[in-house]
Amino acid sequence: MRYTVFSGGKRLRPAIVLLACEAFGGRRREALPAACAVEFLHTYSLIHDDLPSMDDDDFRRGRPTCHRRFGEATAILAGDALHTAAFAALAEAPRDAVADLVAVLARAAGSRGMVGGQVEDLAAEGARPALARVRSIHERKTAALLAASAECGAVCAGADGRGKAAARAFGVDLGLAFQVVDDVLDVVGERRSLGKTPGKDEDSSKMTYPACVGIGRAKDAARRLAARAERRARAWPAAARSLLVDLARFVVDRTH
Amino acid sequence: MRYTVFSGGKRLRPAIVLLACEAFGGRRREALPAACAVEFLHTYSLIHDDLPSMDDDDFRRGRPTCHRRFGEATAILAGDALHTAAFAALAEAPRDAVADLVAVLARAAGSRGMVGGQVEDLAAEGARPALARVRSIHERKTAALLAASAECGAVCAGADGRGKAAARAFGVDLGLAFQVVDDVLDVVGERRSLGKTPGKDEDSSKMTYPACVGIGRAKDAARRLAARAERRARAWPAAARSLLVDLARFVVDRTH
Repeated sequence: MRYTVFSGGKRLRPAIVLLACEAFGGRRREALPAACAVEFLHTYSLIHDDLPSMDDDDFRRGRPTCHRRFGEATAILAGDALHTAAFAALAEAPRDAVADLVAVLARAAGSRGMVGGQVEDLAAEGARPALARVRSIHERKTAALLAASAECGAVCAGADGRGKAAARAFGVDLGLAFQVVDDVLDVVGERRSLGKTPGKDEDSSKMTYPACVGIGRAKDAARRLAARAERRARAWPAAARSLLVDLARFVVDRTH
Repeated sequence: MRYTVFSGGKRLRPAIVLLACEAFGGRRREALPAACAVEFLHTYSLIHDDLPSMDDDDFRRGRPTCHRRFGEATAILAGDALHTAAFAALAEAPRDAVADLVAVLARAAGSRGMVGGQVEDLAAEGARPALARVRSIHERKTAALLAASAECGAVCAGADGRGKAAARAFGVDLGLAFQVVDDVLDVVGERRSLGKTPGKDEDSSKMTYPACVGIGRAKDAARRLAARAERRARAWPAAARSLLVDLARFVVDRTH
């Protein structure tokens, strides 16, 4: 569990939780349990997605993947325990927010969210690239958790239904932008900065944005999505929104 | 997910949730989300424990295990989605109970509960049988979730700290009795009534109660534990306790 949680991730999802909480007028401290929860959930999903029966990845963040280091059984169980730890962390959130937070995170994680996206991702390997299908995979596999992160932050700040919907919409745009950039980096990125083997998507015939529309148009799409996320964040009440704007720019400009 | 959830389990854990709720003066309806949650969590743990890299079981409840039927990736993901579904169900519980329920279930499920028990169970394969170690495995792998089931029922009924502790103690005794009987049935049971291959524990050098103390003394221990669970339940406020007493007897008298 520690090996993969503390392997130098960008902490993008918890940053979104904390900043969204501040942007809706909450205090960062109140959002810490939810911030830990989304990172635990993200880490569990990485460990399971990397397994031999799934994407069969040997490297992640410049180190052997969890199952390469500790064996398959331990990796599955480390993922399972982190999955539980995510919800355990939510139980530490401000009491009147817990039910909402659990519902939001479970919706993002479950069979209609991340798990559904991974099922579809595996099923789509080798199929003819189709933009609607890629988008549906990205929405569930990646954008769902970024949207939940933003919404959890808004929930911790006590935002109303409109605020929560706005946070979610920001997260969806940012998440799609993030994943399109991920697809692009898998084609043009370098192993050293990526910390994983580039070219894996093409090798395993993954359905990606560049495979559908080419690198140039994929980059354009990412920029458009991130710009829309930026515009959404600018409308939020508190000053922390400017950091979210920076974050939206980072997502498209990053090299890893 | 449906294949394994609807494969004819005994529904022991949800029965404990509902009856414990009634025994502490609550209404059964209020405990339904928690009852679903513990069954989903139990089912996820069965699917993952059966995987080739873990206990490598081919049959469960008279049918091929999930990974034998749908492949390993789908089985891992079905387990993951059921794990999430457990917490999603808890978010539907009475609002002021959600934080407690999530904490109780997460404690039972996580690295110090079921996952820790499974890690230790795998690590103990082939080691010299030792009663304290078997007990520690059984406490985490099996008794933790039965204890959480009873405690969740008490929480849904609005029981106080003493009531919750009493429910948990009942569940620990019942859970240990249940697992000892499971160990015994693996030696003396028949494939048709068990729905799985008997003799698997010995084949994989599992650390079990009978391996430590023999069949006779293992049966005695199960009866003693179940009798203590019975006595605990008799002290509870409402009439439903008599069904819990019946349930404690069923746990030792069962043939599957």
